[in-house]
This record gives sequence, structure tokens and C-alpha cells, in this order.
Amino acid sequence: MKLVENTAGRPVPTEVNGTEQTPFQGVGEYRPTGNKAAPPVRTCTDYPPGGDKRVRSLKEALQKAGLRDGMTISSHHHFRDGDLLMVQVFEAAAELGVKNLRWFPSASFPCHEPIIKHLESGLITWIEGSLNGPLGEYASSGKMNGTAVLRSHGGRWQAVQDGEVHIDIAVIAAPTADSFGNATGDRGPSACGLLGFGLVDSLYADKSIVVTDNLVPFPCLPWQIMGQNIDYVVEVDRIGNPEEIVSGTTELTRSPDRQYIAELTAEFVRAAGILRDGFSFQAGAGGTSLAFAIYLKEMMKEAGIKARFIRGGSTKYLVEMLEENLTDFILDGQTFDLEGVRSMRENPRHIDTSPFTSYNWHGKGNFASMVDVVVLGATEVDVDFNANVVTHSDGILLHGIGGWQNCLFSKCTILPIPSFRDRIPIIVDRVTTLCGPGELIDVIVTERGITINPLRKDLIKATKDSGLPIRPITEIKAEVEELCGGPPAKPEFTDQVIGIVKWVDGTVLDSVFKVKGTNDA
Amino acid sequence: MKLVENTAGRPVPTEVNGTEQTPFQGVGEYRPTGNKAAPPVRTCTDYPPGGDKRVRSLKEALQKAGLRDGMTISSHHHFRDGDLLMVQVFEAAAELGVKNLRWFPSASFPCHEPIIKHLESGLITWIEGSLNGPLGEYASSGKMNGTAVLRSHGGRWQAVQDGEVHIDIAVIAAPTADSFGNATGDRGPSACGLLGFGLVDSLYADKSIVVTDNLVPFPCLPWQIMGQNIDYVVEVDRIGNPEEIVSGTTELTRSPDRQYIAELTAEFVRAAGILRDGFSFQAGAGGTSLAFAIYLKEMMKEAGIKARFIRGGSTKYLVEMLEENLTDFILDGQTFDLEGVRSMRENPRHIDTSPFTSYNWHGKGNFASMVDVVVLGATEVDVDFNANVVTHSDGILLHGIGGWQNCLFSKCTILPIPSFRDRIPIIVDRVTTLCGPGELIDVIVTERGITINPLRKDLIKATKDSGLPIRPITEIKAEVEELCGGPPAKPEFTDQVIGIVKWVDGTVLDSVFKVKGTNDA
Repeated sequence: MKLVENTAGRPVPTEVNGTEQTPFQGVGEYRPTGNKAAPPVRTCTDYPPGGDKRVRSLKEALQKAGLRDGMTISSHHHFRDGDLLMVQVFEAAAELGVKNLRWFPSASFPCHEPIIKHLESGLITWIEGSLNGPLGEYASSGKMNGTAVLRSHGGRWQAVQDGEVHIDIAVIAAPTADSFGNATGDRGPSACGLLGFGLVDSLYADKSIVVTDNLVPFPCLPWQIMGQNIDYVVEVDRIGNPEEIVSGTTELTRSPDRQYIAELTAEFVRAAGILRDGFSFQAGAGGTSLAFAIYLKEMMKEAGIKARFIRGGSTKYLVEMLEENLTDFILDGQTFDLEGVRSMRENPRHIDTSPFTSYNWHGKGNFASMVDVVVLGATEVDVDFNANVVTHSDGILLHGIGGWQNCLFSKCTILPIPSFRDRIPIIVDRVTTLCGPGELIDVIVTERGITINPLRKDLIKATKDSGLPIRPITEIKAEVEELCGGPPAKPEFTDQVIGIVKWVDGTVLDSVFKVKGTNDA
Repeated sequence: MKLVENTAGRPVPTEVNGTEQTPFQGVGEYRPTGNKAAPPVRTCTDYPPGGDKRVRSLKEALQKAGLRDGMTISSHHHFRDGDLLMVQVFEAAAELGVKNLRWFPSASFPCHEPIIKHLESGLITWIEGSLNGPLGEYASSGKMNGTAVLRSHGGRWQAVQDGEVHIDIAVIAAPTADSFGNATGDRGPSACGLLGFGLVDSLYADKSIVVTDNLVPFPCLPWQIMGQNIDYVVEVDRIGNPEEIVSGTTELTRSPDRQYIAELTAEFVRAAGILRDGFSFQAGAGGTSLAFAIYLKEMMKEAGIKARFIRGGSTKYLVEMLEENLTDFILDGQTFDLEGVRSMRENPRHIDTSPFTSYNWHGKGNFASMVDVVVLGATEVDVDFNANVVTHSDGILLHGIGGWQNCLFSKCTILPIPSFRDRIPIIVDRVTTLCGPGELIDVIVTERGITINPLRKDLIKATKDSGLPIRPITEIKAEVEELCGGPPAKPEFTDQVIGIVKWVDGTVLDSVFKVKGTNDA
């Protein structure tokens, strides 16, 4: 594998899984050429005139869709760790005796552990998509035959739209659907809220299969996925485990340090003048983010301020704000709990979005850049404000990127993070894996103080007299290192690239190397 | 112009306006090859990060969009005869000094008469789209430099989607929009309900301009048109004349003959067993269709029957049925009156659709074929059940196709029409212009009786003992000819093709010839 150094000073391969790659060229520097992917023209002649596209089984659907060696099968991850479908899909594929498939999920979860045996049997050559849990460990240990390709939600849309990834067969798990293939995520026993992560698959795949455990008479509404893009519909007993579909990450933090970080973050937003009528914010589902939203809510009520929109991942906390009329809209990319699902189903001001509306960099604008302030996590940051979300200081690949990279384009990006975890400092000289260029990260809030990116002179000026503990990043770093007994130990890497991190424009931002001593194949 | 005879026995040109044409090959016989049109990949780098895409004027928007000689400019016709925008657009284009444009509206109306001078000056070479009123007369008289191309609503989507028509610049009149380009038709001083006819333009045009007289803060919801597909936003004083936006065709017929036809049609639907719980129907906005819907409504109430969905063009009559819970949904392609607009805005069971969901033949199915019964008009029918909607027996091009061709794919297509108009018989030996092949037309209802297509043995059997006046078509024809003093006089045509009628699959179904003696250029 030939490596070159990209503009960010990171060694990246020029070819991955047989596809030529473009190294990262700087934020906003790479200019795409050419045209979008163009799916084949179909004709109604080939589809049942009454609109009933049901076939008897997953196996029959895969057969009719023309499954053969080397194909790419895609899926969405709105069921998170409650997905019961993709294991069944690959069992069916195994029965059909194909091999060398690429699985292109928007993310995989611990529930997908049974798929490891298909990686070992050669049914699946590699997984391209976020790897959480056992599949992440499997890839980290260098056992996967292909290289992991990590993309943001917007990057996945971009890759499919631009024809970088061609999907042969899309499998779309649908909590409710009709026999024509219209599908929604906002109702049914496996309700997950919305199906935005599967939308691009339905638009660009050669063949698309909707699988549901809750068939309703035509028309299924809202048609988050449109039957006009669907080839086959399959009914199965169960597609999801509702308890695991809603995320376990929507608990408020109980740590006093993190509560303090959340409060400081909200104070900063107020001091910087961002908290004004008609503003907008995005905060994720992590405990600190949720606590931030609650502090912000109190400040909004106090000041009589209403947001124009809040971007979700939605939780009961955001739903409360919508119902208390503290925001006109929730623009939601995924629902993290049952209250989010209920609100999306019932409240016309709780709007489902997709990576196209929110994040796709290769469109005519997107929502991310219109958000006044976004609050995100990170595993590491460095003195140049670069940040990492996919590995820890030990170098092991553990997380996906999600919408994190896409959100960096907000008007003010804040990372509220503890200054150390398990006695390992979080602020380092150079992040292990570069996921977000420092120029896009404006503020880091720790329990030891707030640090503002020197590029954001406006924020520095606005908060100068706020009384908030604003400090240089190097000062916080030195303090933490003293406390923890020095900077984190650096892992020893082999020269094997086990994964790459794509930037939002499809270029390669960094590589993930295999750590020495991790379990070899 | 070289003509060949197509499968339907109609002479059609092999090339029109410089583009090669495929003659009609029979219903469901033509198989498309190749891939959909692929718009250029864009990048957010080129769009304002805050999302504000406003420019100061139409002229500036056209300039920035790169308007130059020979380009295609498209528009939608949801404002019908109340459109105040396209005249302004072509004034701006004239000021920019370009020439040889193609205007590709989904339809044009009498309000567009001022555009004739641009056809004469060479600014516009030809109009491709339905021509109503003065522009239709202008084309009929052979003065237009190009040939009119008549397409159904579904055919227009198919043509753009398949790359048959490339749109350089789409102009999208928007009753309400935000500065990012999200737009809706369901509110604002020029509210027209929905914007489905402009959707394909926004998806496939190189550049798209949203023009509004009602700018709202981001996000404009519902985003019937998505800002992610829009390049520029222009604010103008007025884009539409509300009184003319709502159609004048939503008055119930007062003619006793037509009321009788409407009643007979409803009786037939009941006798044929179509009127059952969960059924669906579509009826247009003409007086007879509306009367049919009212008769049907009474029968439904009497029998305790509820429809699953009604397809609009919506009117106050359909809205009443929705509000009286006689249907679960209205699936609406255009709103014909203010009650339709209000209902779409307020009622979550009044759903906006587009030619993609409803009519596009080159998709993975569409809604038209799932409708149990559709009631349509016609200017002429013949003894083989072929029908005409674009010309009358005098051969003059007067009407567009609308969704008429697309609707023929319903499970039962009924044409309730008077047997003569102005003493001219409607049933002829051979329709002047073929718009709908007889095999798709199941029933014709006149004030002199009902005739069933011999192909529909099931309908003949079901209604055999109904007591309804079911008669052979030739018998009704003979009776009417006796009454009117013989069959209609045949017009004398020149050999100049002034327009072609496309079938839903993009093939050429028939030609419209210039009538001898019509005003020459």
C-alpha cells in the first residue's frame, strides 16, 4: 500500500480496496468534477400494475434482485443495537452460496457479531461503514480482508451520490411499510423514528428491498422512503428489538465534573452572544450534551428566548423544549428515545431530515453550516485544536464518525470534554487520528477552563470580560499532564493501514494503523 | 420532416427540434435502456455558508446562473392563469440580450400572451409544454419556429429524468420560501397548494432559481422544494394573481344531460362492484367529474363505505369527503380551489404528491395503476375506444394532456362525455389525434347510454343484469349521427407537423398537423 502525506501532514494510502483515493487537500479546497451517479432507467412494465411488490422471503428477494459474487449490499443503522435483520440477510446470502460481498452499512453494532463468521468464510470480504463493538475489534486486529473506510453521515451520502460507492442491493429495514414499498420509521412495533440514513440507498441502489414486520394497506404514510424507488417488499416476523433500538446514551451525566463542563459551555454560549431570539443549536445524545441542553433551556426561559430550530438527534429533553414552545422546530436526523419517536409521529413541528438536507458537502448547501452553535464530543484534541473521534490515545479503532465532521461547519463548534479520562490526558501534542481539522473547532471546554481557537478573534473579544475561566490550551494541557504524570503513552503502530478516515468531500484525511501487539489473524 | 407509421397506424416524425424520436411501439412494449440524467456534482464551497442565497433581481439570478443563447428555461404551472412570473423572467432575459431559448413549462396559459413577442423576436425559439389559449393558437397556426411537444405530467418527469430534455435553468415560483431556497406552495398570498410539477426541475436542472413574494425565516416548512437543490433565491413584489391561481373549472355542471351522465357513471361504478370499502378513485375538476364525485359520495354514505384514498386535483368537494371521514387520504397532485389549499396546509391526511409518485412510467411503479377507478374527459373517442384530448374534430390544437394519459393505467378508466357538442358528434370512426390507445379505455358513458370496451369481459359480466343502459358503441354512434346530420366534417390538413403527442414512455404516439386555412405566418 503506497502512502503519501496529505495537506494535513498525515500519511494516507493512494488506493484502498482497489479504489483510487484523493488525499485531503484542505478544508474547502477539493473541487469535485463530473456528474452524480445515474441509476438505471426502469419501466413500470416490469413492476406489478396493482403495486404489490411482496415476495415470500429475504432469500427470494435477494435472488430476484440478482445477488451474485462481489456485490455491495447496503443497510441503515436506525435500529442501532436492536437490528435483527442484517444477520438474517447474510444467512440468506450464505444459503445462496455467493461470496466476496461488500457490506455497506451506515453503521454496525454489537448485535452484528454473528456476521464475523461470514467475514471468515469469505461471504463478506469487507465492511465499509462505522464499526462499533466486536466488528470494530475484528477490523482493528487486522483480520478483515479489506480496509475499513470511515465516513461521516454526510460523507456516506456524498460517496453514494458521487458514484464512489455503487450499491447493488439496498436492504431497508422498515418499522412500517405497504406492499408498494412506501415505508416509515415513526410507527410500528420496531419504530425508530425516521429512515434518513437509508434514503440515499433507496435513491441510488440498482435494486432496493424493503423489509418490514408491520405491513399496512397502501398508502403507508409518511412515505419517508418512497415505493417508487423500491423493487421488492418482504414481510418477516421481527426486524428489530425495540429496547435496543432506543439508544442507551440518553442518560444525563451524574458526574459533577461533567455537569460543570456542561454549565460552563452554556455560560460560554450566553456570554458569546449566541443565545438570542431565533438562534439554533445542536447537541448530541451524550450525557454532557444533554446536560448542556438543560442548562441552556433554563437560560432561555430566564431570558424569554425562543430558538428557531434545534437540530436532533432528538431526546425527551429536546421534545420537552418543543412542547414548551422554546423552539419552533426540531430538525431531526435520528431519534434517540421513544419520546423522540412519539414526537416525530405526532408533532408537525418535529421534522425528519436526512444526510442530504443536513450534511452532504457535495450539494447546494446544507443545514449544518446554518446552525449557530453545536456541541460535540471528542476522544482527543491537540494544541492546534485538531480533534479525534475514532481512536483513543492507545490507537485502537473504537468509534464511528457519525455526523461529527459535518457538524464542524456550524457557526460555533464547541467540544465540552473532560481534560482527562482514566488518568489519561485528552489534550495532546498531536491527535492519534485526525478526524476534524483544528480550523473548524472553535472552543474546547474542560473542567479546568475554556480555551478558544486563536482564529476566532470575535469569540475571544466577545467573552473577554465575561468572567469565565478562559485559558490558553497549552496551559490546561500542562496542568493536566502534571496531574496525570505526563502525556499519554504513545502506542506502537505497525505499518498496516486497517482503516482510513474520509473527509466530508471524499478525500482521505488520515489513516488508522494496526497497533503492535493487538491480536493477529 | 421524415414521417413513419407507428404501431398505432399514425404518421410520426423521426426527428423533432433536432432530437431523434422513437415511434410508439404499443402499450408497455418500449423498453428503455441506459441510465437516468446525472446532474453535476456541486460543492458547499460554492454556496454561502450561512445559507442565504438571495440575489437582488431576476436578471442577476439569470446572469449568475450563466444564461446564454440556446439554453432551456423551465417553469411549473401551479399558478395556472394567475402566473405573473414568467413574463418578468423573459423580460429580464430579453434585457440580457440572449436568443434562441427553449421555454419548457409544464403548461402555459392565456396570461402568457405577452411572451408571443419573444417568440417573434427570436428570444424564444419554441415552447415545449402544454399550450393553452393564445400560445396554443400561435403554435397551431404554424408560426412557432419549433415543433410543439405535448407530454403528460408523467411524461414530462420521464423526459427530464431520462435526459431527453436537459434543463439549464429552472425557475420555480414559490408562494412561500426561505433564503436557502426551501419552498412551499401551501401558504402565502399566492398560495397554490403544492409545487409537484416543479420538483423534477429542481432535481435535474443545472441551476435552479426560487422566486417568491413571501420570504420567511429558515426553515420554510414543509419543504416541498428543497433548498439543497436550489442555487439562487429572488424576492419580487408579486408572483401570482390569487384569483386566477384557483381554477375556474371547479363549478358543478348545471346541464341536465351532464348530470345524468355523472349519475350513470356513479351507478356503473356501483354495479361493477368497484364501490367497496377501502376502494380508491380519481375524478378531475371538470363539472361532470365533480358531479360524479357527489353522486358517488351519496352512494358511499348510503352503503357505509369509506375510501382508502382519493386522488386529486382536489376541490372543496373532495375536501368535504376527507373531513367527513369518507376517505382516509387525499393524494393530491394539484389543488384546484382555496379549500384544497387550506386542507393541504392543515390536514395531515391531505398529502401532496408529484408526477414521480403518481405518474412517471419510467420508475419502479407509480400510483396511477393502483387507483380502482378514474373518471376522465375527452374531446373525441372512436369505435376502437381510442381517445383524443388535445384537438377537436376541427383539428385545431387547443388543450394539453395533463395527467390524462397517466391515469389511463387505473384498474377501470371511464370517460363520461356527452355524445355530441355544438351538434358535432363525439364518437367517430377514428380520432383526429390519438392521445390514449383504446385498449386502456374501459368504459364510455354518454347521455345515450354506456358502452364497455369488449376487452373488459369482467366489467361486461359484472354489469350484465344491472339494468343500466349498456349498448354497443356503434349503436350510440349511429344514433348521434342521425341526430346531428352525419359524422363531423373532416378538416383538411397540410403536411406540416406543428406538434407531436408523446406517449408516457417517451415514444411518439401521434402528430398534430397544421389545418389548411388557419392563419399562416
